[in-house]
Formats: sequence, C-alpha cells, structure tokens
Amino acid sequence: MNYAVIRYILGLVILFEGAFLSLPCMVALIYREARGIPFFAVMLLCFFVGFLLSHKKPQNMQYYAKEGFVAVALSWILLSFFGCLPFVFNGDIPSFTDAMFEMISGFTTTGASILSDVEVLAKCSLFWRSFSHWIGGMGVLVFILAILPMGGGQNLHLMKAESPGPSVGKLVPKVRQTAKILYGIYCFMTLIEIILLMFGGLPLFDSMLLSFGSAGTGGFSILNSGFADYSPYIQYTVTVFMILFGINFNVYYFILIRKFKDAWKFEELKYYLFVIAAAVLCITYNIRDLFPTLESAFRHASFQVGSIITTTGYSSVDFNVWPEFSKVILVMLMFIGACAGSTGGGIKVSRVILMLKTVKKEMYFYIHPRSIRKIKFNQHVVEHEVIRSINIFLITYMMILAFSTLLIALDGFDLITDFTAVAATLNNIGPGLELVGPTSNFGMFSDFSKVVLMFDMLAGRLELFPMLVLISPITWRDTKVFKKIPKYRKNSPGV
Amino acid sequence: MNYAVIRYILGLVILFEGAFLSLPCMVALIYREARGIPFFAVMLLCFFVGFLLSHKKPQNMQYYAKEGFVAVALSWILLSFFGCLPFVFNGDIPSFTDAMFEMISGFTTTGASILSDVEVLAKCSLFWRSFSHWIGGMGVLVFILAILPMGGGQNLHLMKAESPGPSVGKLVPKVRQTAKILYGIYCFMTLIEIILLMFGGLPLFDSMLLSFGSAGTGGFSILNSGFADYSPYIQYTVTVFMILFGINFNVYYFILIRKFKDAWKFEELKYYLFVIAAAVLCITYNIRDLFPTLESAFRHASFQVGSIITTTGYSSVDFNVWPEFSKVILVMLMFIGACAGSTGGGIKVSRVILMLKTVKKEMYFYIHPRSIRKIKFNQHVVEHEVIRSINIFLITYMMILAFSTLLIALDGFDLITDFTAVAATLNNIGPGLELVGPTSNFGMFSDFSKVVLMFDMLAGRLELFPMLVLISPITWRDTKVFKKIPKYRKNSPGV
Ligand SMILES: [K+]
Ligand SMILES: [K+]
Repeated sequence: MNYAVIRYILGLVILFEGAFLSLPCMVALIYREARGIPFFAVMLLCFFVGFLLSHKKPQNMQYYAKEGFVAVALSWILLSFFGCLPFVFNGDIPSFTDAMFEMISGFTTTGASILSDVEVLAKCSLFWRSFSHWIGGMGVLVFILAILPMGGGQNLHLMKAESPGPSVGKLVPKVRQTAKILYGIYCFMTLIEIILLMFGGLPLFDSMLLSFGSAGTGGFSILNSGFADYSPYIQYTVTVFMILFGINFNVYYFILIRKFKDAWKFEELKYYLFVIAAAVLCITYNIRDLFPTLESAFRHASFQVGSIITTTGYSSVDFNVWPEFSKVILVMLMFIGACAGSTGGGIKVSRVILMLKTVKKEMYFYIHPRSIRKIKFNQHVVEHEVIRSINIFLITYMMILAFSTLLIALDGFDLITDFTAVAATLNNIGPGLELVGPTSNFGMFSDFSKVVLMFDMLAGRLELFPMLVLISPITWRDTKVFKKIPKYRKNSPGV
Repeated sequence: MNYAVIRYILGLVILFEGAFLSLPCMVALIYREARGIPFFAVMLLCFFVGFLLSHKKPQNMQYYAKEGFVAVALSWILLSFFGCLPFVFNGDIPSFTDAMFEMISGFTTTGASILSDVEVLAKCSLFWRSFSHWIGGMGVLVFILAILPMGGGQNLHLMKAESPGPSVGKLVPKVRQTAKILYGIYCFMTLIEIILLMFGGLPLFDSMLLSFGSAGTGGFSILNSGFADYSPYIQYTVTVFMILFGINFNVYYFILIRKFKDAWKFEELKYYLFVIAAAVLCITYNIRDLFPTLESAFRHASFQVGSIITTTGYSSVDFNVWPEFSKVILVMLMFIGACAGSTGGGIKVSRVILMLKTVKKEMYFYIHPRSIRKIKFNQHVVEHEVIRSINIFLITYMMILAFSTLLIALDGFDLITDFTAVAATLNNIGPGLELVGPTSNFGMFSDFSKVVLMFDMLAGRLELFPMLVLISPITWRDTKVFKKIPKYRKNSPGV
C-alpha cells in the first residue's frame, strides 16, 4: 500500500475543501451572519491540515486500484467530516452524528435529511448544504484533476472510482482535459438553470441553491414544503433540468463538438427517455382523480418521475399518499436510476439495459442452441468483462441492500420504511416511503442505523467497491506482503 | 419444433395424472363421499385424453432444450388444469380461476391458498390438494422417467427443466436409475414422517397429508389454524422433517451408499444448517417476550425458520405480528430458499454461496490485481459457465419479481402485501406478510393478479426459463425456420 500517495491525495482534498468553504464564508459576510464564523474557522483548519498532509509530494506517485479505492473512500469521509464541523459549531445541527449524516447526504447527493425544519438554518449553512450537492455530483477528485496537474498516468483510477456508471470513457485522451470538459458543461448548464429560475421570480440565492440541488441530483430543499409552493413554471423548469442532469454527459460533449448524430446514437438516452415517458403517462393516469386538473396531475407526475429516476429526490407533492401502482413505479425507478456518466445514482439505465439484453440472449440460446449472438450496445459488441462486472455489481448491490435493511430493522420501524430508507440512501435519492416519505426525515433512526445509512450513501455514490475495499480486512491484512515483495507491485498493471 | 414429442410427453403426463386421481377416488370410497364422484369422472377423462395423445409414439424421439422446456411448462399447466376440474365440479372451489390457482399452488408446492376455510372441504379434496404437493415436490416427469423406459438419450432435458438448482447432477449414469433412487429416498423419508406423526397421536389421514405437505415443501394445511393447535411433539417433528426435505438429496444418496465423508463434504449443507441456526437464535432472542417460555419462543422460531427457508410455508403462529427484525430475517430466508436438489424453492443456498464467493473474488482481485483465484465449491473449481448461468438466473428472477409486483399493485393493496405475495409465490413458499400473512389467504386478489401469481408459481417451480421460453414469441416465431432447414436441427447438440 502506497501510503504516501493516499496521504497526498487526502491533503489535496482537504485543501480544496478549505477553498470551497470560502463560499459559505462569503454568504455569511453578505448576510452578516454570526453563524458564519465557524465556517471561517473550519476553512482555516482545512488549509492547515491540508497543507500538513500535502506539502510533501511523494516521490513514488505510482498507485493502483487498491490505493485509488482507499484514497477515494477516505477522501469522501474526510470531506464530510470537515464539512460537517461548521454545523456542529454554529449550532445549526448540534449532534455530530446528525451533522455527519447531513453532510454525507450532501456530498453523496443523497439529500436525505435529519432536519425537520430547514428554514431556521443560517443562509451560510443552507448554502453549504446545497453546494455540497453540486461539488459531490460531478466529484471532488474530478474537480481537483481538472485544476491540478497531478502527474502519473493512473489518475483514471481516481476518476473511475468517483464517476458513476459501468465504464468511464475518457472523452479525450487526457484525463485532465476530460475532467475540464465535464466541469465546463456542468457549470454552463447550472448557470442556465439559475438564470431560468430567476426569470420565474426566484431570488438569486434560492435559484442558485435549487440549481445546485438539481445539477448534482442532490435534492436538499430550502423550504420545509419542498417544491409544493413554487409556481408551475418553476416546477416545470426544475423537472426539465433534473432530467437533463440525469443524462450521460458524453451526450452533451458530442453536442458540444457538433456530432449530433453520435449524440443520438446513445441507446441509454433513448431508453431513459422512454422509461420517463412511460412512467409519467402511467402515473398521470393513475393519480388523475387526486388533482383538480389533468395538467396538475401531469405536472406532479413528471416532477416526481424526473426527481426519482434521476435520484434527485425533490418533491412537489407527498407521493406517499399516491395509489400503490404509482408508488411501485416510483420504487422501480429508484432502482433503475439515471444514465451512466451523469450526476445521478441508482443501478443506472445502461446496466439495466445490458441485464435485459443478457436475459434475452440467454432465451435465444435456449431456443437456438447453436446460434452465436453477441450483446450489442451503442452499436458495438459488449465485451464479456463488462457483463461480468455488471453482474457482480448487481449481486454486491443486492447484498448490501439486504444486509442494511436487516441492520436498520433493529430499530423496529415498519418494513417499507426500512426497505425504502436503504433504497433511498444506497441509490442516493433522499426520500423513501412511509416514515421516510417526502414530508418526513431520517431523524428518528438510532445512531447505529444512521451509521449504516451513511455507509450506504457513500457506497452508493462511489459504486460500492471503494467502500467495500476500505472496510475489507484483506486490504489491510496484506499490506505486509506488499512491503516484502515490492517487485510484485511494481510489475502489477493498473486496472 | 418437434410437436410429436411434446404431444407424446403431454399424453403420458395426463395418463399418469389419471392414475394419481385414483387415490382421491379411494379416499372418497373409504369415507363414502359423494363429492368424490367428479374425481372419478376426471380420472376417466384423463385416461381418455392421455390415451388419445400418447398412443402413437413419435418416430423421431429427438428433442432439444427448447422442446424440453415447452413440454415441461405445458405439462405443469395441463396437470393443474385437469387436476382442478374435480374441485370445480364437486363445488369445493366453484370458481375455475380459484381452483386453477389452488391446483397450481399445489403442484408447484407453493401452498398459497384462496380458501378461507379448508375444514369444509371433502376428505378426497383435502387429500388431492396435499398429494399434489407430494408429486410436485419431486416432479411428475421425474416420476414418469422412473417408471417408464422412454428411450432417447435426452431425457436429462426433462429432468433438468423440472429439478431445482443450478446444476442437476445425475447420481448414476442412467437418468432412469437416478429418478428411481430419488423417488425411493423420497418415499422412504415420507413414510418415516407419517409413522412419527402417528406416534404423536395424529390419525393416519392427517399424518399422511401433513407429511405430503412437508415432503414436497408444499405447505397446504388441513386445519384453519395451521399448526398452532398441534402438540409441541408434532411441531418439532415437522420442523425436523421440513429441514430434512430442504437438503440436497445427493446427500442422502451418499449416506445410502455409506459414503458418509462425501455426504459431509457438501458445502451447501453446512451453510444451510449454519443459516438456520443463526436465524433461529436471532429470532428466538428477538421474540422471547412474546411467549410464556423460552422453549416455546425457540419452538416457534425453529418452526418458522425451517418452514420459510425450505419454502414449505406451514405456520405454527402468526409471524406477521412479530417484530420487524424477525420479519426481515424471514423475508431474507424466503429469498435464500432451500438447498439445490431438494424439493424446496427460492434462489437456493448454493446459488447464494456462489454469489458471495464471486463478490469475494472480485474484491480480492481489486486488492491483488495479478492474483489468479478460482472459485471453488465442494472442493472443485467452479466453471465459468455455472457462474454465468447463476448471474442470469438472478437477473431474470429480479425482473420477474419487479414486474409481477408492478402488475399486482394495480389491485391497490399495500406494498408489503404485493411484494411478499410475489416473493411467496415466485419462491413457492405460500404465506407472505400483511394481507397474505399466515392467517390470511390470496382470495382477495383480482383474477388478473391471480393469473400473474400463477405464472410466478410455475416460473419459480420450474426455475424461470421453461415458462419464459413458453411465452416467448421467439419460440413460436422461428418454428418455420426449423421446418425449412431441417439439417440445422439435426446437427444441433442437446444442451
Ligand atoms: K438525491
Ligand atoms: K411452499
């Protein structure tokens, strides 16, 4: 284990967090909030700790999948640790466990809250909460990669560990360029959303925070009523942007370089839009009697479908009281999730498509035993290795889901609450059903359950394996072996 | 598609059903029940239809996976169709849909009932219901293979399609011998259970029916109270036998031929017993305050754990009122299911073990990228193809689960009812939670939902693919292709 590299990466991450913290400090200055002082203090602390860890660049910058996973997992935990301190110190969230839960929920773009009243928070706290979604959506390491020349050819490890989806393609040969392009598109789209929301009459502050939440598919709201009290214009605008941020960013890149045909070749995009359309239609029909007009039924159905499939988790209405059929559709969307390469969570549309294709191929094989049929995706043959890794992802995912539900069931809440609480955190959605429905929060869980759910949020955001590698005894047990046989590692290829 | 072979196999199955129907006729004679007359009539009908279909043996007895799957799927549907007619005619279950549901539930060893009062049924009806569990547990085609010399070397297709588990091993080189040995062990163990239950003071009739239900892991009870009113001796005996019938029958074969060491080498057996022990301990502790003595808490915990993991579905107590933690454990056991090669359903312990090993291997690979580590099971290296087929099974299983839940949600019952109703039928368990809990039944579902659940019961019992191949348009669309290019089929190898 190359500890020096991990130390260095963690140092950089904490330094950057210090820089990010300057933003809520500015908000506190503008609104003259005394509760902003802890943000200033923690910013200085981050600069200090970050400098201590990162000022000595390690001589050997070589690292492998293992170090990459450990570094990413620890980065996100430290990010949340330092990020939650201002809440504890300024009294907005006095309990450390709760503050940590809220912050992990922020960075992982889950948006599950332990707060029953968000309107009493200081403006700087509200800003920091929503900003964590924005930076967490695209990834903090991707951000650092875009800014800093890190050296070493294996930065793709970091990007892979932090980016959602079965296979992270580099848009351009260089990791740094790819990271820059991604953040460029991300900033531009966020800006457009902010402007459109301001057109709808929202103040700049509110527009920014809501845009951060939808861009990162995060879902922290700034009113206790969520999106229920906003105008239809705002609701429709946010619906559209949630759906846009759930699309693979490669599509935007192709649009950017004017390869419109290539953009439309993405199979995942078509299926994603089809699923959204089908779900909106079914739910609109199913809930039509609950609303005064068909338009409002359609508006709320679209908002909720867009919010859940992209794993944003905003709510314009309490869908917990909807008919069962609509709720089952929403639960299914929770698992499907957004497109790979977007800021959303869940299993991802492309994985679901490839799973369906695998089953279809198997059926075909039973019927025509001699046929040789390859699975194709985006008009290319899918390599066996991709299918294998999707299968393993699914199995691992199911196991974490089952085991987490079992653990939080110790609190004794009902099964739907437990199951959807885990589903909503593991898929980085936010609200579930029943006691964790859109009008409720996660405050009633025991500290033990909160830790389980924090693990699930991180596991979900980092696509399971970084967190599993971090807590696996094998990772730490075999450190000695590596020290004894350095040659073994030197020759080992990056994954 | 070799239609002649399918016709012939279906004919044999219906002929044998006629023979089976002679048993309830005898019961009706003994108890002098007029409601037995329809059994006699349907028996004659079966002999007639069976003879019509099977008297002309096809010249070409070659068949492949496709024909095997279609034949097995249709066999089970026809078996249930003819089997349910006596209930409709003698008025015990006047609705055809309900009778069909009850009979499919019987043959697939699900044990989910639409009856709210089973004590009003005629003795012959009660007998036929429970006997369907017994024949369905080991399989009707396996029974025919044991009795009849069928010719053709591909009878393994039929046995594979009907036997549970990821890989059906032949105990001895000949399929017919294997089938005989399996049924021999099955009969012997059922007999022992009947005798032990009679020792406990139960009449022969009750002992037989309860033994049929536990041997086939079926779960139809003969009292409305299930097992609540039986003595602890009866409850413990049935617990032990449920667990025994959930074990891979290969273990008994090795014991039979005195290879005790080989019997104990089955990894699945150890994990199965470990999971049972762990679940019983956790649940006993969790429910200890609900019962007057620790012994009764232990007894009911064991009974329920044994009943659910083996997918029998008998209940000694209403576990729907147990604490959430215990209920989550039971729901997890529903999915794990019994051992492969037993009469039980579910995903099967061996599949779950292999999935866990796959994840462990993947983790190990991330940590030691150059390591070459093979998955071993029962001290043998597991072939890649087995892992692949397990993955496909799991994906298909999840999809049927999700889609069925969506469809029955149209009835508007609560989510837990819907989800556990599908889980209880797809895993061939019987009772679920809430409205389909152990004290309730499936009578309230719409006919549409009942058809969905019937499909799930058959899909679960036949390990998904025979039913999918049956309803797949590809199966029927390409029939022409086969007729045009007969050479293609001749050379095609059996799967
Ligand atoms: K979210
Ligand atoms: K059963």
